[in-house]
Amino acid sequence: MNKIGIVGGTGYTGSELLRLLVKHPAVEVVCITSRSESGTWVADMFPNLRRHLALKFVAPDPETLAACDLVFFGTPNGTAMGLVPGLLQAGVRVVDLAADFRLHDPALWQQWYGMAHACPELLQEAVYGLPELNRDAVRKARLVANPGCYPTAVTLGFTPLLEAGLIEIGQLVADAKSGASGAGRKASVATLLGEAGESFKAYAIPGHRHLPEIRQTLSAISGSDVGLTFVPHLVPMIRGIEATLYGRLTTRKDVDLQGLFEARYADEHFVDVMPAGAHPETRSVRGVNMCRIAVHRPQEGDMVVVSSVIDNLVKGAAGQAVQNMNLMLGLEESMGLELVALQP
Amino acid sequence: MNKIGIVGGTGYTGSELLRLLVKHPAVEVVCITSRSESGTWVADMFPNLRRHLALKFVAPDPETLAACDLVFFGTPNGTAMGLVPGLLQAGVRVVDLAADFRLHDPALWQQWYGMAHACPELLQEAVYGLPELNRDAVRKARLVANPGCYPTAVTLGFTPLLEAGLIEIGQLVADAKSGASGAGRKASVATLLGEAGESFKAYAIPGHRHLPEIRQTLSAISGSDVGLTFVPHLVPMIRGIEATLYGRLTTRKDVDLQGLFEARYADEHFVDVMPAGAHPETRSVRGVNMCRIAVHRPQEGDMVVVSSVIDNLVKGAAGQAVQNMNLMLGLEESMGLELVALQP
Amino acid sequence: MNKIGIVGGTGYTGSELLRLLVKHPAVEVVCITSRSESGTWVADMFPNLRRHLALKFVAPDPETLAACDLVFFGTPNGTAMGLVPGLLQAGVRVVDLAADFRLHDPALWQQWYGMAHACPELLQEAVYGLPELNRDAVRKARLVANPGCYPTAVTLGFTPLLEAGLIEIGQLVADAKSGASGAGRKASVATLLGEAGESFKAYAIPGHRHLPEIRQTLSAISGSDVGLTFVPHLVPMIRGIEATLYGRLTTRKDVDLQGLFEARYADEHFVDVMPAGAHPETRSVRGVNMCRIAVHRPQEGDMVVVSSVIDNLVKGAAGQAVQNMNLMLGLEESMGLELVALQP
Amino acid sequence: MNKIGIVGGTGYTGSELLRLLVKHPAVEVVCITSRSESGTWVADMFPNLRRHLALKFVAPDPETLAACDLVFFGTPNGTAMGLVPGLLQAGVRVVDLAADFRLHDPALWQQWYGMAHACPELLQEAVYGLPELNRDAVRKARLVANPGCYPTAVTLGFTPLLEAGLIEIGQLVADAKSGASGAGRKASVATLLGEAGESFKAYAIPGHRHLPEIRQTLSAISGSDVGLTFVPHLVPMIRGIEATLYGRLTTRKDVDLQGLFEARYADEHFVDVMPAGAHPETRSVRGVNMCRIAVHRPQEGDMVVVSSVIDNLVKGAAGQAVQNMNLMLGLEESMGLELVALQP
Repeated sequence: MNKIGIVGGTGYTGSELLRLLVKHPAVEVVCITSRSESGTWVADMFPNLRRHLALKFVAPDPETLAACDLVFFGTPNGTAMGLVPGLLQAGVRVVDLAADFRLHDPALWQQWYGMAHACPELLQEAVYGLPELNRDAVRKARLVANPGCYPTAVTLGFTPLLEAGLIEIGQLVADAKSGASGAGRKASVATLLGEAGESFKAYAIPGHRHLPEIRQTLSAISGSDVGLTFVPHLVPMIRGIEATLYGRLTTRKDVDLQGLFEARYADEHFVDVMPAGAHPETRSVRGVNMCRIAVHRPQEGDMVVVSSVIDNLVKGAAGQAVQNMNLMLGLEESMGLELVALQP
Repeated sequence: MNKIGIVGGTGYTGSELLRLLVKHPAVEVVCITSRSESGTWVADMFPNLRRHLALKFVAPDPETLAACDLVFFGTPNGTAMGLVPGLLQAGVRVVDLAADFRLHDPALWQQWYGMAHACPELLQEAVYGLPELNRDAVRKARLVANPGCYPTAVTLGFTPLLEAGLIEIGQLVADAKSGASGAGRKASVATLLGEAGESFKAYAIPGHRHLPEIRQTLSAISGSDVGLTFVPHLVPMIRGIEATLYGRLTTRKDVDLQGLFEARYADEHFVDVMPAGAHPETRSVRGVNMCRIAVHRPQEGDMVVVSSVIDNLVKGAAGQAVQNMNLMLGLEESMGLELVALQP
Repeated sequence: MNKIGIVGGTGYTGSELLRLLVKHPAVEVVCITSRSESGTWVADMFPNLRRHLALKFVAPDPETLAACDLVFFGTPNGTAMGLVPGLLQAGVRVVDLAADFRLHDPALWQQWYGMAHACPELLQEAVYGLPELNRDAVRKARLVANPGCYPTAVTLGFTPLLEAGLIEIGQLVADAKSGASGAGRKASVATLLGEAGESFKAYAIPGHRHLPEIRQTLSAISGSDVGLTFVPHLVPMIRGIEATLYGRLTTRKDVDLQGLFEARYADEHFVDVMPAGAHPETRSVRGVNMCRIAVHRPQEGDMVVVSSVIDNLVKGAAGQAVQNMNLMLGLEESMGLELVALQP
Repeated sequence: MNKIGIVGGTGYTGSELLRLLVKHPAVEVVCITSRSESGTWVADMFPNLRRHLALKFVAPDPETLAACDLVFFGTPNGTAMGLVPGLLQAGVRVVDLAADFRLHDPALWQQWYGMAHACPELLQEAVYGLPELNRDAVRKARLVANPGCYPTAVTLGFTPLLEAGLIEIGQLVADAKSGASGAGRKASVATLLGEAGESFKAYAIPGHRHLPEIRQTLSAISGSDVGLTFVPHLVPMIRGIEATLYGRLTTRKDVDLQGLFEARYADEHFVDVMPAGAHPETRSVRGVNMCRIAVHRPQEGDMVVVSSVIDNLVKGAAGQAVQNMNLMLGLEESMGLELVALQP
C-alpha cells in the first residue's frame, strides 16, 4: 500500500480526493491536514465519508508528511510552494492541485498571482499534469502541477485541432462555464445560494488566472504563441464545466473533424469523443474522471465549434490528480477511477 | 381603456403578458384563448393572478378578437399566420410573440420552420419589434413581429459596434445561454427538473432558428451580410439569458467603447449600459423589461467582448411585446413596465 | 412625502425594503446606512436598483435618522435596541425587522438571543406587527416588532383554528421549510450554493429562536400556553417558506374548515385562502406580500393539516414591514404592495 | 455470473439499476427492454453509461426474460403483474420496483391504484423487500416487492420506536419531502424545471398511494393498526428524500433514544444513525444505498422527532433492489453497493 498524505483537506479538492482515495485499492490515506480543524474527525465534516474513513484532521507536520510516498496539496495558491522543496528533498513525490507550479515563468506567475514565487527553480522541473499530453513525463516526475479546471476542459478540446494545425491560432475563443464549486468551499457572499442561484453571469472578462495557463499549453502544442480570448461564466449549479471553443479553419477545409478527434483520443481512458452531431451535458460526467467532447462545423462554414465537458472537481481537479498519482506510482492509470457518472 | 386579446394564454409568454397587463393603467385584457382550457379560470392555472384577474379561458373566436384594439399571439410557431390576415382586415392591430412574421424572406422561413408560410405578403409589412432599432416603424405598424429572446440579447449587444463599423462583420461569435423557460410550458422530458437541473450543455450547434433572425437584423444594420456563429446553451435556471459576444476590431483601435455604448443607449428606457469593468447578472433583470450590457476589451487586444443580459420572458418576450403595444397605441413607451427586478 | 430611513441596508431585508419603497407613492427613502459600505452607491451593490435609486450608503448618524418620519432596522439581532430609545424620544416611529422587540419577556429574550436586553422597558410597548392580529395597535404604535418569517407563516396558518378553539393546543406540530435567503446575505460556508444546493435537511430540531416567538403569539390567541413542536428545514432555493401545520381536532368534528378559513380572512388583503383541495406553491407568492393558505382534513380523520406559504423576504420581512409602515403612517394598508408574483 | 434482465429500462429506476449493475462483480445485465426505444443503444439515451454498457434496448420477449436468473421491473404500476406469473413459473426470480406487489390486500390495492389486480394470489407470497425488516424472507423469496421511496425513509425512521413500543401509535405524523426525480422520467408539465424549480409545495395531502403501504408495514411492526398522517412535498432538486417524523412518547419517558436507534441498526450496512444532535442532509447519501437517521427529543418534551434521509433512486429504489437481489442470489448483501456519496 502506498502511503498518501493530503495537505489542506477541508476544501472541495481535499474532500473529493478522499472520496476517490478511500476506495482506491493500492493506496492508503495516512494523513490529512487542517490547521483550523485539527482534531476533528474528517467524517464529521464530510458525512459522506462515514464508514469509509476513520481519520482525524491533524496540523501539518513535516515529519509525518515526509513519511508518505506521495503528498497532494489541496491548499490555497501560494501555500504549497513553501513546503514542496522540503518534501522533495525527503524523497516524497508531490501533486499540487493549486496553481503554484503551473506556469513555467516566475515573472508571469508573480504578475497573475500577486506574490513572488518561493521556489522558482522548481517551475521548470514541475510537470504539467495533463496525462493526455504529458503522460511519460508525469510517470517520472517528482512534482506534478495538476492543471486548473478550465484549462483541462479547454486544452483537451483544442488539442486535436492545434496538433493538426487546422485552425488559425491567432484568434481562438474559449467561452467557458463553471458550477459554483469551482470557487471553493470558503465563506463568501458572492457564491451564496441566495446570490449565485437562479442567475448566470460572465466574470473576469478583463483577465482570469487560467488564461496564461491555457495560453502556455496551447502555445506549446502549436509551437508558437496563440491568441486566446477566454471568458469564464458562473452557472447556478454545483459541479461541472462546459467550454465552447471557437476556431477558424485554415485552408484545409475538407478535413474529417470527427475522425480527427476520434483518432486523437482513441487510446485515452478519460476522454470520450461523442458521436457526430451530439452535445455533451455536464451531468454525463458528474462525479467521474472523464472529459466528453463533441466537434461541430456549423453549416459547413469556416468555424469549428467544440463543446467540452468535465466535472470540475474530478477531471478538473481530484480525479486528474489521482490519474497522475497512478502514473507516478506505476499503477494502472485508471485504477480507482472507473466509476459511472451520477445521472440524473 | 384599450381592449386587449391574447391568443394562446396557457404558455409562459401568455402568463407573462397577463402578469404585466393586469397592472397596466391604460389597457384591459378582455379575452384570453385556449382550446384545451376553455372554461377554466385563468387564476386557477396561474395562482399568482388570483385577486388580479377574473377571467376564464375561452376558445378562440374571430368575432370576439375582432372587437379588440390589439391582439397578442402567444401561440406556437405557425398558428398566428392563419388568423392574422383576418384580424388586420378587421382593423385589429397585432403583436405576434412567435416567429411567424420575423423573417422577411418566405423561403428562408420555410427552410427553418418546416412549413410554407400562409401569408407571405405580410412578411414585408410586418415590423420587427425591436424598438431600439425600429421605434418609428413600430408606432405605425399594424403587425409587429416580436423578436426572439436570443435575438434581442444578441442584437442589442452588437448594435453599437456594427452601427459604428468597428468590428469585422465576417466572423462574429455569439455564445448565448438561456434558462429553461425558453423551451416553453409544454410537457417534455428534456426540460424536466430531473433532466435539465444541475447540468449545463450547448445545443443546436449545427443551427438554431434564431440564427437567420439574428443574421437578418445584424446584416440590415451593417449594410451587408454578416458571418455569425451562434451557439445556444441551456442553463439550469428558470429565467434569464446571457449572451457573450465576440467581435474583432477593425483598424480604429483607439475607440472609446464604453462611451460608444453609453451614447448609443443614452435615451433608451430599457437598455442599461453598465459601468466600465462590470459584469451584468441575469438576476439583475429578473422580471423586468431591461437589457443590461457591459463592453470589454480584454488586455487591450483586438477582441471586443460584450456581455448582454435580459429576462427571456420579459425583454425577450412579453415585456418587449408590451413595449411595442405602448408604441402602437400611442402610450408612453414605458407605461406599465417600470418594475424593479426581483433580486435575489 | 414621508421621510424614511433604513438602518442596515446591505442585507436581504434592506435591499428588499428598497425594492418596495422606491416605487411607493407616499414615501421617500432619504437615508440608508451601512458602516462598511459608507460612500458606495446603493445601486452599485444592488444593480436591480439602477435607474430607481440615486442614494449612497452612509454611516449611521443619529441626527439624520432623527429627521425621518419612520426608520426601519434591517440590522442583526441586538443592534436596534441600542438606537431605538433615542429615536423614539426624537419622535421617530420605528419598525424593527430583527428580533429585538418580538418577545415580551426580557428573560426569555436573553435565554434565546444570548445577551441582556438593552431596553427591556420597551418590550411591553412594542407592538408585534402582524396586522392580521394587531391592526389597530400597529396603527398607533411608536415601535413595531416585525414578525419573523417562520412565525408569520405558522401563525397565520394556525390562527383560525386556535381562535375557534377547534384543535388540541397541547400538541401542535409545525414543519416549516425555508429558502436559503432566510439565512441572510453574509459570508458563510453553510449556505454556499455548493453546500446548500441540491440538498435538503432539517436543522435546529432541538430549538430555534422562532419557537418562543411563535409560542408567545399562539398562546395569546388561545388564552393559554400551547405545546408546539417546530422543525425548520433548508430548501435549495432562494425565496419562499412553506409551513405544514398539524393539529388534532377536539370534539366539534363536523366543522366546515374551509368556510372557517375563508371567513376569518375574508377582509384581508394579504392572506389568500386557496380553494378546497388546493396546495399552494411558494412561487405563487414570489416577490409579493401575500400568505396563501390551504386547509385539509385527510380522509376525514382527526387531523387538520394546513399548508401556508409566503415569500420569506416579503410577507415574512420587508413587505410586512411596509404593510406596518402604511398603517402607522395612516396610509392605505396595501399601498405600494399590490404587485403580481413572479411565476414562473 | 448471474444473468439479469430489466423490464422497463428507460425510466430513472431502470437507468439507476444499470448504473449500479454495470459495476457489480457477480451479475451481468443481459437484457433491457423498452417498447418505444427498441433498437436504440442504451448508452445513447444515457451517456453516463458510455464505455460501461454495450447493449441495445429490446422489445420485451418472454423467452429472453425466462432465460434470466432474476428480472427487475422498472415499469409503471400495473405492468409487472401481467408478466410476473409467467416468469415465476419459468423459475425466474423477480424484484418489482413498482407498486404491484406491495400491498397484501387486493381490495386496498384496487382502491388506491384504480384497477383490479391481475394476480391477487401472489400478493400474499410477495415479500416486502425492506431487508432491515424482512431479510430472511427476502433471501428465500421468488418475488420481492421493492418498497416505495417515501415508505423506505419513513419506515426505517419509525421502526425502532414502534418495535420498542415507545410512542403512541394512534397519531403518527410523517412530513416527507422528495426531489423531482421521484415523479419519474416522463414528459409532464408539473415537473418541468420551469414549474418545479425554485418553488416548494405540499401535495396529495388528502391521500398519497404510499400511505396505505406505510401503514401496512408500521401496523405489522406495532401489532395493531397505526394512525398516520402522511404529507409529501416536492423539493426543487433532483435526488433525495427527507422525512421528518413526529411521535408522542408514551409513559416510559427516561428512555435513551440515541442508544435505542444505535442498537437497532448496529449491524445494518445501509442504515447509519447519526451522532446525537446531528441533522442528516440528503446530499450525504446522494448516489448511495444508505439511510441516515437522527433522533431528537426537543427540549426534553413528549415529542420524539426523527429525521431520515435517503436517495430516493438508490435506497428508495434501485439500490434497495440490488440489495434484495444480492440476498436472493446468496451474495454478500453489500456487493456492488459500497460507493461513497457524491458530496457536494
